[in-house]
Amino acid sequence: MKTNQNTDTKEIILTGDRATGPLHLGHYVGSLKQRVALQSQHEQAILVADMQGLTDNAHNPSKVSSNILNVVADYLAVGINPSQTTICLQSQVPALAELTMYYSNLVSISRLERNPTVKSEIQNKGFERSIPAGFLTYPISQAADITGFNATLVPVGDDQLPMLEQTNEIVRKVNGLAGRTILNECRPLLSNAPRLPSTDGKNKMSKSMGNAINLGASEKEISTAVKSMYTDPNHLRVEDPGTVEGNVVFTYLDAFHPDKNDVEQLKEHYRRGGLGDGTTKKVLEECLQEMLRPIRARRSEYLNDKAQLLEILSIGSQRSREKTAKVLFDVKDVFGLNIF
Amino acid sequence: MKTNQNTDTKEIILTGDRATGPLHLGHYVGSLKQRVALQSQHEQAILVADMQGLTDNAHNPSKVSSNILNVVADYLAVGINPSQTTICLQSQVPALAELTMYYSNLVSISRLERNPTVKSEIQNKGFERSIPAGFLTYPISQAADITGFNATLVPVGDDQLPMLEQTNEIVRKVNGLAGRTILNECRPLLSNAPRLPSTDGKNKMSKSMGNAINLGASEKEISTAVKSMYTDPNHLRVEDPGTVEGNVVFTYLDAFHPDKNDVEQLKEHYRRGGLGDGTTKKVLEECLQEMLRPIRARRSEYLNDKAQLLEILSIGSQRSREKTAKVLFDVKDVFGLNIF
Repeated sequence: MKTNQNTDTKEIILTGDRATGPLHLGHYVGSLKQRVALQSQHEQAILVADMQGLTDNAHNPSKVSSNILNVVADYLAVGINPSQTTICLQSQVPALAELTMYYSNLVSISRLERNPTVKSEIQNKGFERSIPAGFLTYPISQAADITGFNATLVPVGDDQLPMLEQTNEIVRKVNGLAGRTILNECRPLLSNAPRLPSTDGKNKMSKSMGNAINLGASEKEISTAVKSMYTDPNHLRVEDPGTVEGNVVFTYLDAFHPDKNDVEQLKEHYRRGGLGDGTTKKVLEECLQEMLRPIRARRSEYLNDKAQLLEILSIGSQRSREKTAKVLFDVKDVFGLNIF
Repeated sequence: MKTNQNTDTKEIILTGDRATGPLHLGHYVGSLKQRVALQSQHEQAILVADMQGLTDNAHNPSKVSSNILNVVADYLAVGINPSQTTICLQSQVPALAELTMYYSNLVSISRLERNPTVKSEIQNKGFERSIPAGFLTYPISQAADITGFNATLVPVGDDQLPMLEQTNEIVRKVNGLAGRTILNECRPLLSNAPRLPSTDGKNKMSKSMGNAINLGASEKEISTAVKSMYTDPNHLRVEDPGTVEGNVVFTYLDAFHPDKNDVEQLKEHYRRGGLGDGTTKKVLEECLQEMLRPIRARRSEYLNDKAQLLEILSIGSQRSREKTAKVLFDVKDVFGLNIF
């Protein structure tokens, strides 16, 4: 596992996913692989963020509730080990809601409105002023998540850096009020994997837009997705020279093919002409089928044993309640509210 | 006890006070007297709103924490009976924070910004865009309080009616999502007592502006406050006719003097001239001293036995955790989150 920052083994890592759909290959290369590697060296918690998922899905809550166990199955299928990593359900950890309430008093509305990540999400979702309060304020809730677990290392994409800035602002305010260090600032653990493009090459990969390959995708779904993948639109005949850059098939080959030399040879061949998209797609499909076959099988096994998934989530949530209760106590102490 | 609405004895009443200062005569006539009368006929809960108090005092939290037990002592001193009324501390009831999070997804920022009560408070406090998120969103937290206790009757001043409207909007949204009645709408119980003016006749009575007579005021403080009371500025000589309307001494006599006939005679005498402000103030002071003497004594007794105050608050908070847990369960059910 290579990361672009040194990590102290004593550090606590928090990651998580909105439970709004099954996880896909973008999650795998961008984050899940890293989590699997980190879990043996670090204390790691993963939050299944159902409450955050509701911030823009409250009117369609089954989108969240129906995906909770899917996401847990995805974790386990890719190798997250619940005896090494705490997997917990956000709504099962009330201290996170309580911390959110306290922190809300330390962050102004205008500060929230300046958050670039939220700004662009508001624009993408077409919310404008009808933005739900819970959505505008979700960076505060994320700060509660991060600090509630006392996490100091947060694996994120660079689009999420403003969230960590917001968290650290809150940390400094709480510590300022306390006159001593109550909460620890966190720092990002940026993945060195480039963001995986959507299969159509156009958009951010999205659970809802049908341009992603889910970890649980069937053989047929994988095949269809690869066949419809965006390549080089100017590569009309097999004998024409083709462009590798921006060609989604090659980006995926870079990300997933186990043999870098093979990929380099394919790229050269494609560039000089004589290599058809059908052939490159075939290579990619084989590679993805091979990679996803055991993941799909494990995922499906887990989903057939929901009692086990629930138990894993329940144990992790219980452990998380204990951890976060301690932080909540410290924060309430700053506000003088531990009067009993 | 006369109220301007019929009350069903089965209804649950929720009231509360921000724990930002000791309670004063304005609270007494506007609300506390009514609560004492209601507690024998209704299920009543009183929330010591420490978390709400922090929404605009997070940078001076001792203003809240140092007043929690003062407020409880005020309640007991005026006759709130903890075996009839549940007295609880908001921060001790995590379900209220959790409900707030769920409801936040159902209310838009622009809706919050249209709330006339919050609007005028923002203006009064000079917040503008630096308004803390927790302050703009506190109507959502109030909705969590009201619905969390399943309260259907909420004693309020008419300035608080927008809060109940906001609550009922959330109730309807939750019920709409559920397709059945999960939460009950609440209605206001408007006090028929007119709002008591501040002693300077100018402002809203305020714990912080020194223009209120606290329930625990000393003899000397009462005396000083009455002597400095705003009367009729044109009543320069004793023999001059005086004006009763807007004369704070007479407003207080109306509110507190036990004998309405005596007050009427004083008013007539004052109007025709020959009655000095010193005399009317002496009558008022005697009446207030007599009324507040036993309240002050009881208040001081309670404050000398903090263990008892804490126990009352602890028992009430425990009872409230049980009540609100049930509502939280129902609301989480609407979002499909009771998966264990």
